[in-house]
Amino acid sequence: MPKLDLAKAPVKTGSLYPAPYAGQMAGRSSIRLGDLAGLTQFGVNIVTLEPGAVASLRHWHLNEDEFGMVLEGELILVEDEGETVMRPGDCAAWKAGVANGHRFVNRSDAPTRFLIVGSKATEEVATYSDVDMKLHIAGDKARFTYQDGSDWAGPRDLAPKGERNG
Amino acid sequence: MPKLDLAKAPVKTGSLYPAPYAGQMAGRSSIRLGDLAGLTQFGVNIVTLEPGAVASLRHWHLNEDEFGMVLEGELILVEDEGETVMRPGDCAAWKAGVANGHRFVNRSDAPTRFLIVGSKATEEVATYSDVDMKLHIAGDKARFTYQDGSDWAGPRDLAPKGERNG
Repeated sequence: MPKLDLAKAPVKTGSLYPAPYAGQMAGRSSIRLGDLAGLTQFGVNIVTLEPGAVASLRHWHLNEDEFGMVLEGELILVEDEGETVMRPGDCAAWKAGVANGHRFVNRSDAPTRFLIVGSKATEEVATYSDVDMKLHIAGDKARFTYQDGSDWAGPRDLAPKGERNG
Repeated sequence: MPKLDLAKAPVKTGSLYPAPYAGQMAGRSSIRLGDLAGLTQFGVNIVTLEPGAVASLRHWHLNEDEFGMVLEGELILVEDEGETVMRPGDCAAWKAGVANGHRFVNRSDAPTRFLIVGSKATEEVATYSDVDMKLHIAGDKARFTYQDGSDWAGPRDLAPKGERNG
């Protein structure tokens, strides 16, 4: 397949998260390059974060490797150990099953862009580090629970660990 | 895991190809970011091509999705349909099993760099489009054959299809 026409890639805005977390994802959008190319084994997205926007809740994946590279602007990578400033060309990666919640945050005055690659496992659990929530994916079904596995029924913050949300 | 220290990533030079194809890969090196981070589900490499260097024989993968993004310089993407000039930020992707041989070539006067991501399948066959050769990978074993499956015992060019090698 020749060069991808990024203008033709599906654009994702909004969030799968329940309220109030979905609303915290305002200012984030992503173009789905892997979907454009018909890839099925891993996702490849270019995410744009407007000033003040965050890429996700801080999370880690049970079954999916993940890799990110900053393309434009200055981002803050927030993890258990603290914060790291990331600039174009800087890379980070998260091996499946390592319980270190991470997210990118744009605290600058300019839009930022990063490339993110993640495996597509048929069964997956994402654990959120700062709120009492997990996402369970099985095939095309997604379900949120508290971290004890019971059905999610509204926000419960955890004690601060690294950065707080909102 | 915080920002990757690219200077600590394993560097690969040389080639798995048998002679004379290994020698055609001179001027190519790659840093193995996925290996540095302990990822096992897909590889992530930054490949540097010196002026005149090529990234590979033209090939396609039976079982592994692949994605590339140009980071620096001007590359030529060679595929069945012809050639495409690729510049920083340009992306291309190759879905597993699509029989369209591809490779990057640096015909410029400056070094080029690109990011390449590929699934790690336990069983894989790479088919080379311009020479009579296939690579079979099973676990950690690699074996070259002719395209009819018989043991490889020396170079045989195919009729020109797209670009010729060497």
